[in-house]
Amino acid sequence: MQNAQFQIRRDKARELMLQKGMRAMLISLPANRYYLSGFELHDPQPNESSGYLALFEDGEDVLFTDSRYFEAARRLWKEKNIYIYRAMGAAPGEIGQVIGGKVKSGKVGFESRLMSVAFHADFRQGLDLTDADGLVEELRIIKDAHEIELMRRSAQLNHLLMEHVPSLLQPGRTEAQVAWEIEQFFRNHGASGNAFDPIVAVGPNAALPHAIPGLSPVLDECPVLIDVGARLNDYNSDQTRSFWVGERPAPCFSSALEQVKAAQQRGIDAIRPGARCSDVYLAAWEYLAECGVAQYFTHGLGHGVGLETHEAPSLSPRSDQVLRAGMIVTVEPGLYYPQWGGVRWEYMVLVTENGCEIL
Amino acid sequence: MQNAQFQIRRDKARELMLQKGMRAMLISLPANRYYLSGFELHDPQPNESSGYLALFEDGEDVLFTDSRYFEAARRLWKEKNIYIYRAMGAAPGEIGQVIGGKVKSGKVGFESRLMSVAFHADFRQGLDLTDADGLVEELRIIKDAHEIELMRRSAQLNHLLMEHVPSLLQPGRTEAQVAWEIEQFFRNHGASGNAFDPIVAVGPNAALPHAIPGLSPVLDECPVLIDVGARLNDYNSDQTRSFWVGERPAPCFSSALEQVKAAQQRGIDAIRPGARCSDVYLAAWEYLAECGVAQYFTHGLGHGVGLETHEAPSLSPRSDQVLRAGMIVTVEPGLYYPQWGGVRWEYMVLVTENGCEIL
Repeated sequence: MQNAQFQIRRDKARELMLQKGMRAMLISLPANRYYLSGFELHDPQPNESSGYLALFEDGEDVLFTDSRYFEAARRLWKEKNIYIYRAMGAAPGEIGQVIGGKVKSGKVGFESRLMSVAFHADFRQGLDLTDADGLVEELRIIKDAHEIELMRRSAQLNHLLMEHVPSLLQPGRTEAQVAWEIEQFFRNHGASGNAFDPIVAVGPNAALPHAIPGLSPVLDECPVLIDVGARLNDYNSDQTRSFWVGERPAPCFSSALEQVKAAQQRGIDAIRPGARCSDVYLAAWEYLAECGVAQYFTHGLGHGVGLETHEAPSLSPRSDQVLRAGMIVTVEPGLYYPQWGGVRWEYMVLVTENGCEIL
Repeated sequence: MQNAQFQIRRDKARELMLQKGMRAMLISLPANRYYLSGFELHDPQPNESSGYLALFEDGEDVLFTDSRYFEAARRLWKEKNIYIYRAMGAAPGEIGQVIGGKVKSGKVGFESRLMSVAFHADFRQGLDLTDADGLVEELRIIKDAHEIELMRRSAQLNHLLMEHVPSLLQPGRTEAQVAWEIEQFFRNHGASGNAFDPIVAVGPNAALPHAIPGLSPVLDECPVLIDVGARLNDYNSDQTRSFWVGERPAPCFSSALEQVKAAQQRGIDAIRPGARCSDVYLAAWEYLAECGVAQYFTHGLGHGVGLETHEAPSLSPRSDQVLRAGMIVTVEPGLYYPQWGGVRWEYMVLVTENGCEIL
């Protein structure tokens, strides 16, 4: 990405900001900060930020960080618009002062879902603060051509991995070993890391939506659920497949898998610009209800994916969002049976002008 | 760890909580939540929590989470004390209601450095909230015998890695390749991941405290700075070494390394119960000042390390903390020269009853 493209994104965010009556806005969410500046997609720890970004009416945006990141900041940003705070603890007060010095009157936006109560207390000072939650996410929800290309590559790496998975599922190998093999495959193919903690679940473990790979070994003739993703060029993939190890899949497994795949197809058929997210969920759910198994489908149908693994929109029955071209969502129905396990099947789907495309 | 030990930690935290006049306390920081319950050391994303822990006067503590984590919670916690919230967005209000239902009057603590402004707005309701920041950290700062044993093992893995590093530093290999080799070494020896993003910095890159491993190759006759750590059994290690690749170390490298090691020894000599953190920093700094190079030592001397890589206390000139037996700190002076690079040398040091011990 060229710096000019981050500038274009900032200008779009600025336009939204001004439309909402704010004269400046402080960005705290790492993915939003990165999206608008190219600076640091991640923070080192939950209680330690890499930096903050302030957008201003006049376009002289400021990147606030500590001295460790000065060189990284300087590669992306005019030096006069980089502010190095004295210490982590001093950051909220100093950032508030800089913004107050530039914005004499008028509203200043901040991300209330990300800014801590303690930060806010030192930051607010005399500022007329207002909640700017979701403003940058509103831009991020529509992927541009470059992002779609990166998401396509990230998804392709996941497809390549899934072709490789059957050779990894050797009876005797533990879930944890298979998970580590998968991670190495991703990394050896250029990924910087996992999109999320990998799920490799043998037998009944597949009935836990949040199964942690453990010491359970792959067995001869058993189901294995694999839900993994890679972070490639900063963009996340997310795919689930259910495998049967052996030659004689149990009928309960085969029929559940057939139902899940058909339900997934119903969901995908419903994806087009203008469709309501809740209706896409319902399309899949209703099919499973017709089969008499909807009570075993215990989670949402899918979620947006991009710089973060979980983004807007949500394909849930409670969502009031409407699909638009350029959104990328997962479609991942599953059926879970504590007695023997579960199946889930997932694709990443791009909403196009006319319908959709599986990545 | 047995559940009984988490109970003992909760009882200690409860005692502190009652001493400070709180009748309940909500824990949001992942490492604090894990320390007191064994439940989930990490959150999936900065804007997505795995759960929250509430301590109550009557000892009937409650673990709040979403349905994905129900099974994981049930392995650690009495089912009647697990609360599953309807959805992420509903969590703050529902948690506030549960706490309000149990605490009719009196103060309720919360971590103001972790709780977001938006969470707080839905959570506070009629509660008489007060800041409980640092209360759990005050317990975590002193490692018990079991934790010291785990930290010792984590540090030992790092020592093993450092013995292996010279064989990895082959001219032509890039920083990124070496970093990935190091990560694989850790993982193949039982680590669950890196303690932090690894630093492998060749030549002038070593002058950046936050160097990101890139495409710079290891050269014949060049300095390389390696600052890496593993997470083993949930506990982090952190070690830095500066290597010279080749047979003819530059005199500037050798003399800087000698100065840094001697400064480190001065710092370590100052570590004992009752010593002020700022004095330990000064002991190292003054040596470098005597050498006339203190201006090239641009960061603090070290930091606490444990479940998080960066914890209290801080060995900085501004710290007002005093060392006590059971604390574990890094001691890592460095000298940085943009022209050719830098050197840093780091140990993890346990404060003992009589002095200290290098782990």
